[in-house]
Amino acid sequence: MIDKLIEKIQKTGAPIVVGLDPTLKFVPDHIKEAAFAEKGETLEGAAEAIWRFNKAIVDSTCDLIPAVKPQIAMYEQFGIPGLAAFRQTVDYCKEKGLVVIGDVKRGDIGSTSAAYAAAHLGKVQVGSSLCAGFDEDFATVNPYLGSDGIQPFIDVCKEEKKGIFILVKTSNPSSGEFQDRLVQSGVTAGAPDGGGVTFSDRPLYEVVGEKVAEWSAQLMGQKGYSYVGAVVGATYPEQGRILRSVMPKSFILVPGYGAQGASGKDLIHFFDENRLGAIVNSSRGIIAAYQSGKYSQFGAENFADASRQAVVDMIADIDQAFAGVGR
Amino acid sequence: MIDKLIEKIQKTGAPIVVGLDPTLKFVPDHIKEAAFAEKGETLEGAAEAIWRFNKAIVDSTCDLIPAVKPQIAMYEQFGIPGLAAFRQTVDYCKEKGLVVIGDVKRGDIGSTSAAYAAAHLGKVQVGSSLCAGFDEDFATVNPYLGSDGIQPFIDVCKEEKKGIFILVKTSNPSSGEFQDRLVQSGVTAGAPDGGGVTFSDRPLYEVVGEKVAEWSAQLMGQKGYSYVGAVVGATYPEQGRILRSVMPKSFILVPGYGAQGASGKDLIHFFDENRLGAIVNSSRGIIAAYQSGKYSQFGAENFADASRQAVVDMIADIDQAFAGVGR
Repeated sequence: MIDKLIEKIQKTGAPIVVGLDPTLKFVPDHIKEAAFAEKGETLEGAAEAIWRFNKAIVDSTCDLIPAVKPQIAMYEQFGIPGLAAFRQTVDYCKEKGLVVIGDVKRGDIGSTSAAYAAAHLGKVQVGSSLCAGFDEDFATVNPYLGSDGIQPFIDVCKEEKKGIFILVKTSNPSSGEFQDRLVQSGVTAGAPDGGGVTFSDRPLYEVVGEKVAEWSAQLMGQKGYSYVGAVVGATYPEQGRILRSVMPKSFILVPGYGAQGASGKDLIHFFDENRLGAIVNSSRGIIAAYQSGKYSQFGAENFADASRQAVVDMIADIDQAFAGVGR
Repeated sequence: MIDKLIEKIQKTGAPIVVGLDPTLKFVPDHIKEAAFAEKGETLEGAAEAIWRFNKAIVDSTCDLIPAVKPQIAMYEQFGIPGLAAFRQTVDYCKEKGLVVIGDVKRGDIGSTSAAYAAAHLGKVQVGSSLCAGFDEDFATVNPYLGSDGIQPFIDVCKEEKKGIFILVKTSNPSSGEFQDRLVQSGVTAGAPDGGGVTFSDRPLYEVVGEKVAEWSAQLMGQKGYSYVGAVVGATYPEQGRILRSVMPKSFILVPGYGAQGASGKDLIHFFDENRLGAIVNSSRGIIAAYQSGKYSQFGAENFADASRQAVVDMIADIDQAFAGVGR
């Protein structure tokens, strides 16, 4: 699946992913009214509204982009009907030829991680049948529980030729609270001489990045990158530069562009010299473009056209940043 | 809700929670056959089987225990029908007066964490209605993304009088990979004198525990404990002792008893001097008791009676451990 993602990035010339993270406040009134009229002001009505919203944006942008990244929290808040809209969105995007990255940030211990991996990337055995729960192409995974939380995802990726992106350095303001803590290399709390020793100054995210590099080596694609990638926020370009070299075979999923504050020039160091190795997410900046001053002339009726224009502009912004460094 | 949990623990004399983590291999054949006959060897059939299994165990144990902890991964693997069985289980357990801890280990940045918090503990606004997605009493939360991932959960807990348990030191063998890393106190990678400094030897889990103590102070219940608790694995009793004193107001949810290897004597230090402050989970050891040698005389037909006996024995094991230290 990493090879398919790379092919699609090369074909579209767009190392970007559209974050399908709908909240009801992004959905234009005419869509909400129609959905609520049909299904009530209920979880079902909300789910119908976000599905219609998603479909219009996907129809309007799918020829320009390689991938989408639905954030499952935005669907989960609408309970079972919301999650049905998530599955419907995943299926529709795959029909349209898009690579689907489920932003689920799951992570647990052994058998429980195996169940999440089956839910999002694999299949479960029911009697003599094999059934797929949500069936995304990639999923995001939280590493806090360590290797035995990650390995079951890698096992399913091997089996299904799918991929994961592991959280390394997230884009949010307080990501440094734990991720930036300077840690002692290779020595943990059980060490007999733990008191007062001299530490090297590596932050936790770098240690996690090194583990990601190890995990990546287990499952390489055909095009120089692994099925095991990483998440590193665009809001931390310097860390992006470091992590690009710590994890040379790991594709980086880069959130934080646009609404969170990062721009094209912040992104350069996440890529390799061939303009590969990273894919940049924008959610609000694309799906709610019509609500921003820059695209307000489209109006709520033409929200999907505003999203298309925002995609075109994002690609141009990244192209310009590459041009600035002669790539 | 923490006050209700404490009341129920005192009333039952059982500081335990039954982990409703059904996999199809735990479900007796007669239940699977009946469910598949009705709904096919499909996700719907699997969901029906685990729901019937859960209901029998809840009916058989609910007078003995204060709480249940369904692990959502086990339901999520069966897609939408599986998650409908999760919701059905949550609702049924609440009807039976049990406190429901949703073991969801969610965690993301700001607005996305807010959506997860709404999904599991709160409500969403749909037009003029307020709707609840899954509506558990407590949820487990992953801290890797820092304060701005945790705060939205705390905000919803305040509003709804519900609670969270934040992962601090998990029960799995590789939990030490990142959680035990020795970190420099209060200084992060950006510090100008980061190179070659002398660090104190505090492991990451202790730093996370200190943050949990701070978060706990924001939202105290009436009985000496906070709505914000922690997860610390029974498989690490020494760390349990340390974290009990680092987080004096945080209730500790303790996984790892039974099938994962810990026993009653490992648990003592997680509790305060009043036998409060902790609640111990057992999943497989209770719900799949009939499959273990000790309870095999019950047979698959009487699996729920075996579960009841396993609950009785677990309470006795913990009582005996308390007696051993004169509490």
